[in-house]
This record gives sequence, C-alpha cells and structure tokens, in this order.
Amino acid sequence: MNDVIRLLKSHRSIRKFTDQGIDESVIREIIESAQWASSSSFVQAYSIIGIKDQANKRLLAQLCGEQSYIETCPVFLVFCADLNRLEMACTVHGMKMVGEYTESFIMSTVDAALAAQNAMIAAESLGLGGVYIGGIRNNPEEVSKLLKLPEFVYPVFGICLGYPAQDPGSKPRLPLAVIYKEEFYNNENDLKKIEDYDQKISAYYVERTQGKRSDSWTQQMAEKMQAETRPHMKEYLRNRGFEMK
Amino acid sequence: MNDVIRLLKSHRSIRKFTDQGIDESVIREIIESAQWASSSSFVQAYSIIGIKDQANKRLLAQLCGEQSYIETCPVFLVFCADLNRLEMACTVHGMKMVGEYTESFIMSTVDAALAAQNAMIAAESLGLGGVYIGGIRNNPEEVSKLLKLPEFVYPVFGICLGYPAQDPGSKPRLPLAVIYKEEFYNNENDLKKIEDYDQKISAYYVERTQGKRSDSWTQQMAEKMQAETRPHMKEYLRNRGFEMK
Repeated sequence: MNDVIRLLKSHRSIRKFTDQGIDESVIREIIESAQWASSSSFVQAYSIIGIKDQANKRLLAQLCGEQSYIETCPVFLVFCADLNRLEMACTVHGMKMVGEYTESFIMSTVDAALAAQNAMIAAESLGLGGVYIGGIRNNPEEVSKLLKLPEFVYPVFGICLGYPAQDPGSKPRLPLAVIYKEEFYNNENDLKKIEDYDQKISAYYVERTQGKRSDSWTQQMAEKMQAETRPHMKEYLRNRGFEMK
Repeated sequence: MNDVIRLLKSHRSIRKFTDQGIDESVIREIIESAQWASSSSFVQAYSIIGIKDQANKRLLAQLCGEQSYIETCPVFLVFCADLNRLEMACTVHGMKMVGEYTESFIMSTVDAALAAQNAMIAAESLGLGGVYIGGIRNNPEEVSKLLKLPEFVYPVFGICLGYPAQDPGSKPRLPLAVIYKEEFYNNENDLKKIEDYDQKISAYYVERTQGKRSDSWTQQMAEKMQAETRPHMKEYLRNRGFEMK
C-alpha cells in the first residue's frame, strides 16, 4: 500500500474542528487540485463557493437542517453544478444554449462530484478533515438566494473543512465482492454477505455509542427508503433551468 | 505542494496503453480505495463492474461510440448508480422501497462519482493511467443488457485503465477565479478571464495538432450546447426505475 492509498483508506468524516483557520494558500491548493479532476468533454461545468463569513455559515447551518458543524468549521465549500458559464460561451458566439435536458444535468452533477472528491483528498493530504453536506439540498431555494446563484446553477452538496478536533473510528464498508463484479452484474450471493456485514455494522454502533445504538445497515437503509426525501428537488431544479426533458 | 497534490495536479487522460495487464491485487487496491469515498447517508449506492474479456470490451467499445481504447485497455471499469441493493435491504425487513425520485437519482449518481474519483487517483498512484468514458450512456439499453444490470441500476460512466503508453501534455484549466467564488456567486468579471483562457486553449490545440486545430474553449462549448445530447436518457432512466418524480 502506498502513501496515497493509505490516505484514501484512512478517510473519516470530520465534524469537529479546532479554532485554527485555513490559510488562503491552502484553500488555493485545494481548489486547484479540484480543477485537475476530469470533466465531461472538458465542460468544467461546476463552480465552488467558499464561505468563511460567520453569519453566512450560521444561516447555511440552519438551512442545511441544523448541522452545527457548518457554523463551526472555518471554511464551508459549496459545490455547484454550473451550466451558466456554458451559456456565456454560447452568447460570446451569438448562439443560444440548448441546456435543459437529462444529460446536461448528469454531466454537470458528475463534474461537481469529481472536483469535490479531489478537493477532499487534497485537503486531507494537508492535514485537514471534512464532511460532505447533502443537506444543502434541504432548502435549495433559500440557499440559492443567499449565494446569489444565477440560472443554470444548483448546489449539489457542501463540504465542511477544518483541522480535525476528533478522531472517529473508520466505518466498515460493504464487502468488496458486493460492490465489485466481474464481467457482468450478479448479486445472487450478495444477501448472505450483506447479512454478515449487518452484524459488523451493528457491532460498530454498539461500540461507538456504548450500546445505545445497534441498528444494522439494512435496517438503516430500509427505513431511509420508506419515503421520498427532498420532494421539492424536481420542481426546484426545473426552476433553475435543469429540467429533465 | 505535497506528493498527493502533485499527483492530483499531474492528471491527464490516458487513451493509449502498453500490453501489460493489471494484477488482481492492484485492481483490489483500486476498488478498496473507491469504497473509502464518502457516501450519502452511507447508502453506498453504486456498483463497479470490471471488464477484461476481450469480446465484451470490443462490444462495449462499439456501444460507447467506437472508442477503441475501451478495447485496448486491459481493464474497463463501469461505475453504476445502484439502488437495487437498497431494495434488497427493504425486502430483508419485509418493506417495499420508495426509490423513484430525483433525490435518489442524485444520491446514487454522486456516490458513483466520488467512488470513481478515488479509484482514478488510486490507479494513478500505482503508475496506471485512465480516461473517463461518458459514452457508456450512448446506448445504455444495450449496455445494460450486456452487463445484465437489474432494475434500479444504471451505468453513469466507465473508466479505461492500463499502464500508459503515451505522455500527453496537461490541458490548462479555467482560471481559478472563474471556478472559485468567495461568499457568493459573482461572474461579473469572468468574461474577460474566459477570453484570455480561450487564447490559452487555442494555443494549446495549435501546438498539440501542429496547427490543424485552433478552436477556443468557448467555441467548443457553444457548439456542444447547440443540441440535446443523448436524448434517450430520460426514457431510459425511467425504464430502469430512476423516474424523476
């Protein structure tokens, strides 16, 4: 195992941070690293907004579902899928953008995610820790207003960044054989493996919560998938110019 | 700049590979690294299919739009968004999954992308190179049949992996100030910066193609955004159980 893989495998979500701020030069390194991720047809269809202002972070913490670490982290990065810049490119050449369809949504969302993962890894390599915040999609209209997002831009997720003030244990992943298939998809033997994994996750929670929690992975997932989450998203995306035609 | 950031910033898409195969232990390291990426609410809603069989790779190369490097790379990884496993979790507990909505689509697509970027970085750290293949969405019905994908699974993109047999120059990215904004989105001063960037990209192509190509970034983008790409995707996704309700 080399140092890079050791870093990747030591990832944990960090939600508690020291008071230490993050130098501008460090943020620059992180953003530059994000930019070197691949991009679909080189569209570079994402933008990153860095929030340090305490009042803005407090508002965002509330809008993301009372996630206090957004307020306590020194820098909160919001990763947006961004087709607005492509519209600008069309305008430069006197053309009109055709942008509202499923593929442009996938393309820009994936672009934002690849850039974000590079940012996370760069940050971790510099001694920082962080956590992804999908809660940015809890109140996307209000977030868009606060961040002054124009048409054709939507916030996919945020990342809290800071110097770690906690050392959480790493959470076991699904068995490799469940995630990885050779030549074709085959889940015939997965159930048994997932049940073994359930016991592992249950034990993980028992240990981590001194017995207060013991739910398994399938329990968590089954409960999570009983109702539609963030049912406003389709309408919100349509209003932002991401209609899935 | 540390070694990890140096690696991230040295990324180039590799489309020519030596004859050297990839050891099983190396593939395992790459997939394990992928698994350590963050996952929305720990759903781990993605699967990876590794294709080495020459006939399968040839078929996929055709289905992805005659991209010959899928045939010539030793391993082609297909990253799928996967809600099928969550349905299995529901079934274990005698529940029915509510899964067909915009958020579950975003969640699983982002999960696949974060895992893939970890895989790409792990591979590059091990001396491999690769390229993302969005063309997997050119003929998704046929790809799904070939890979025997069940309901609630769709291929987001592929990655060709192998030992590099080329050393392409790195392609300049948009200026950092265009991608990164502080506190809120503001693109007032971006046009001038993008026009400077256009000249850089144009010069990059002139040099790389001995003058055969000189198109700028905005030209490429404007032309790309004149028509809907892969208009079958919405219908295809609906058929796979990813209806955007």
